[in-house]
Amino acid sequence: MRIIVFNAGSSSLKFGVFDLDAAMTLNQAQQLYKGSFDRFGPDGCDFRHGAHTERAPHRSLSDATRAVPALLQQAGISGIDAVGHRIAHGGARFDAATLLDDTTLAQIAALTPLAPLHNPANLEAVDVARQVWPDLPQWAVFDTAFHLSNPARASTYAVPKAWRDTGLRRFGFHGTSHKYVAQRAAEVLGHPLRDLRLISLHLGNGASACAIAGGVSIDSSMGMTPMEGLVMGTRSGDVDPGLFGYLQREMGLDIAEIEDGLNRHSGLLGLTGSSDMRDVEARAAQGDSDAQLAIHIYAYRARKYIGAYAAAMGGLDALVFTGGIGENSPSMRRRICDGLGFMGLLLDHDRNMAVELTARAAPQIQAYGARVNVLVTETAEQLMIARDVAVAMARPSCQSTRIPVAVSARHVHLCRKAVDALFGPSYELTPDKPLRQQGHWAARERVNLHGPKGDIANVAILGPLRDRTQIEVSRTDSFALGLDAPVRQSGNLDGTPIIRLSGPAGEFDSDGLIIAARHIHMSAQDAARMKLRNGDMADVTLDATGRDLTFTRVLVRVTDNAFTEMHIDTDEANAAGIRGEGDGHICAAASMMPTRDE
Amino acid sequence: MRIIVFNAGSSSLKFGVFDLDAAMTLNQAQQLYKGSFDRFGPDGCDFRHGAHTERAPHRSLSDATRAVPALLQQAGISGIDAVGHRIAHGGARFDAATLLDDTTLAQIAALTPLAPLHNPANLEAVDVARQVWPDLPQWAVFDTAFHLSNPARASTYAVPKAWRDTGLRRFGFHGTSHKYVAQRAAEVLGHPLRDLRLISLHLGNGASACAIAGGVSIDSSMGMTPMEGLVMGTRSGDVDPGLFGYLQREMGLDIAEIEDGLNRHSGLLGLTGSSDMRDVEARAAQGDSDAQLAIHIYAYRARKYIGAYAAAMGGLDALVFTGGIGENSPSMRRRICDGLGFMGLLLDHDRNMAVELTARAAPQIQAYGARVNVLVTETAEQLMIARDVAVAMARPSCQSTRIPVAVSARHVHLCRKAVDALFGPSYELTPDKPLRQQGHWAARERVNLHGPKGDIANVAILGPLRDRTQIEVSRTDSFALGLDAPVRQSGNLDGTPIIRLSGPAGEFDSDGLIIAARHIHMSAQDAARMKLRNGDMADVTLDATGRDLTFTRVLVRVTDNAFTEMHIDTDEANAAGIRGEGDGHICAAASMMPTRDE
Repeated sequence: MRIIVFNAGSSSLKFGVFDLDAAMTLNQAQQLYKGSFDRFGPDGCDFRHGAHTERAPHRSLSDATRAVPALLQQAGISGIDAVGHRIAHGGARFDAATLLDDTTLAQIAALTPLAPLHNPANLEAVDVARQVWPDLPQWAVFDTAFHLSNPARASTYAVPKAWRDTGLRRFGFHGTSHKYVAQRAAEVLGHPLRDLRLISLHLGNGASACAIAGGVSIDSSMGMTPMEGLVMGTRSGDVDPGLFGYLQREMGLDIAEIEDGLNRHSGLLGLTGSSDMRDVEARAAQGDSDAQLAIHIYAYRARKYIGAYAAAMGGLDALVFTGGIGENSPSMRRRICDGLGFMGLLLDHDRNMAVELTARAAPQIQAYGARVNVLVTETAEQLMIARDVAVAMARPSCQSTRIPVAVSARHVHLCRKAVDALFGPSYELTPDKPLRQQGHWAARERVNLHGPKGDIANVAILGPLRDRTQIEVSRTDSFALGLDAPVRQSGNLDGTPIIRLSGPAGEFDSDGLIIAARHIHMSAQDAARMKLRNGDMADVTLDATGRDLTFTRVLVRVTDNAFTEMHIDTDEANAAGIRGEGDGHICAAASMMPTRDE
Repeated sequence: MRIIVFNAGSSSLKFGVFDLDAAMTLNQAQQLYKGSFDRFGPDGCDFRHGAHTERAPHRSLSDATRAVPALLQQAGISGIDAVGHRIAHGGARFDAATLLDDTTLAQIAALTPLAPLHNPANLEAVDVARQVWPDLPQWAVFDTAFHLSNPARASTYAVPKAWRDTGLRRFGFHGTSHKYVAQRAAEVLGHPLRDLRLISLHLGNGASACAIAGGVSIDSSMGMTPMEGLVMGTRSGDVDPGLFGYLQREMGLDIAEIEDGLNRHSGLLGLTGSSDMRDVEARAAQGDSDAQLAIHIYAYRARKYIGAYAAAMGGLDALVFTGGIGENSPSMRRRICDGLGFMGLLLDHDRNMAVELTARAAPQIQAYGARVNVLVTETAEQLMIARDVAVAMARPSCQSTRIPVAVSARHVHLCRKAVDALFGPSYELTPDKPLRQQGHWAARERVNLHGPKGDIANVAILGPLRDRTQIEVSRTDSFALGLDAPVRQSGNLDGTPIIRLSGPAGEFDSDGLIIAARHIHMSAQDAARMKLRNGDMADVTLDATGRDLTFTRVLVRVTDNAFTEMHIDTDEANAAGIRGEGDGHICAAASMMPTRDE
């Protein structure tokens, strides 16, 4: 499949043609063409193609876009299947590649207040491309989309509700870059992305850090705007919001002036007079103390984000550097990583010096035996946009099938050791009621749960015994207990909180406290009929409940003799307006985005 | 020594009388009286003394202050030696307890733009106290002073120079609380504060985190104002500075309105409608999703600061909770700490539940065998203020003595293994020039240093051999090499960067790259004369150089046969305007504040 990708800025247009399909690794994709137009003016623009730069007659982004078909023909490239556009801001709505039509274009245009400079330029390119290629599907890939998976705890500012109601929240940017980098790292490491906790450091003229757990962005350092976070070329990154009032009182500045200062005159530029890290490093080596301080601040801020995101994910498997500075400054990589040995992150100094990034290489530079892998790679946002489009186009259309939905109230699964402690040595639980999944039952016995904030008595025990005790509660229960139970699939218990259980014979402390992630039990026969495999994600819509909703990305678990039904917890049932049991419609293979447990 | 301490707010006055001296532990100090006046109005105020509350006739802070001598007489307390005042903001000037006279009072008044509400109220109390006790010394203890030790990398915002020139920088607050908590934790752990890397989490109505390495604050979460950092009762903590422009465009708000919103209507209040964590926790347990989210955000933000500060310090030895929420919410402590096992931080759940904080207790709640100690303690800011005053009053006055100053150029000390690798097996270095410290010499041989950014050739080797290779460079050298060398005392090499050395026979990679911390070699005889002991800190003034300056907190190393002289590096010599050698004046025992290596 051949896809042309456009990245339109306020005064430049980059584009590329890729040959790839959805099932390829990133490394297997072919780039057929790479070009850019720059510095539009009354007498034309610069046109770059490969290593070659020349003047071209186009005076605007629109003229340049219209010239692309001739350039492709000249290069012998034909058979384009689709157009992909980078769109800066997708707001809280667009979490994946989106087919552009009049409706979606109007929705994107309505997001302009969030990206007053960038979205209009992006949309101008879309407009011209629709005229140039009226018969091709045009797709939007959003720089914010990857971060829409951030949990509310990361995306919510602690500010008045009236402000949040206007759409004020953290979004994050560089999403396409972070997503590429994470996938490329997983390919190189040979581990499924789903099993990795990564930090991606995109250190270019703009800079951001992203925490990626199981392939999903859970936090990133840019916030509502690209001003928050790391120190950048001309942007400040994190500052005290009190500086607005202070600068108004002391210097008579207004919001627009302060915002302009934070966006265009801060960062490396504000600290040293140069926004280019190569200049700053050269000056620092000659003893310029402003440049030395700027490098210290830059590295220190990045190092703190690594610590913060490792804490957010409960540990770190790999750190990936990208962007101009991340790719090209071994001394900055050293500065950022030095001192992180306490969390298993150690560089190999020769490898760090010898990084070569041709042909999508992603060399590893950690020390032998270090617990955290450290990689360096060039980012490839256009390639990632092309791939997102290819994946979206490969997605089969939705086929709706009815599925029963059951509500799981809080319960525990016990191991042998727990039964011994709670009910006495070698005690056998009494099966009371059979469950619909074959061989499973609810016991007559009950246990009590004890948390730092409160207790829950008479909790059901489900049999048979398991190898590991697992306690499944709702989010509301977890607050009543005062414990931070993660949303997890059954059996995925590593790192879950410890809780105390009590029974007639004694107490038992166990980890394994989770909020059960919703899931679908499915017989092999039903799975074959719906074209689903074990591990697939499906969307399920519950309607006719008065509180209709769609549960997206529900894990499908296929076992031979399963009774096909979806399990949700009591909070989810309340949200959907059902009691005990209900009916849903499964949309087979609706989503191919990876999901993860918290 | 009896000290009365005042903490004056805009509508309240707290005070206490302490009996203590500078050499006591915090736990040995006695509190003789504790009182507060609150809610001043036309018909009087509330007066609290111990557990007892009554109405009192005083209509203002000034009237209430004048009533204190009678209250003390009634309680049989006499013999007050000094008055200590809490002052909110000491700016970049005041880093320790300061005797209040007309000059220092004017300097504090000039800081009002940094603390427009708090400093004037504090100064009003000083004014009245000087009338009431005209013969007692009156001391200021600043809430910012403890953080003035933060390195520039932590205290500098990456904003335009013109803004920074007005005094815009990070200060940090709750300094007296963090300092108390750190000292109390060290007492309980039985380790010198100098050997500990601590994080103090002050979680009250205001909230801040502080990274304390070797007893010195190196970073804290509040910045130029108390708005930055953690989520608080009514303050937002960290936000994107872009929200000002957004709210102006979308809601027509101005700076004063936004600042008011961030200060008084944000945080827990903005998220839930209540600023009280007890309310919020109760609502969350009943299923209120706003309250649940607020708790998640609160804990998540705190956990990220723990990770960030551990990264800043290169590891963590102890975490200390204090403030109303830190002291009283076991479930919040659980939420904040869960998931930090990867850095050796694990709670013991029973100990966490059983915390009792009477009589300045500071129980440990980490799990058995956990690498990081976790403590809970009540903060005692008034006690810390009294102690700071006692320490300041116990400081002997300055005695000036001449001391020679020598400049150390870059050099290395080699171990046997390094000499073997660089010059060949069993090679013996050739002593060339004797140094002034007995038995030390410079070798005829030289080595080259290789860093990720550049090389330095022909570096001097000083003998005799040592157990461990140590490379001493200037800060400018470290930038030429592209390595982040810490400022360290000789021999303190753990966690220092690895660098490659090369010689005629080969290469050798070694850690041990430092910027030598300035120090004074001193003979036992000179030390006795100057009343200094090994390990003391002294201030040394270099004058008559054209670039006069005072090096504060210089470590004194006493050895029997030392040649008494101070060693500084080339950057310091350039700063002081001396070449090769110079003369300074040592101010014996001038500072008792702990110092630390980076």
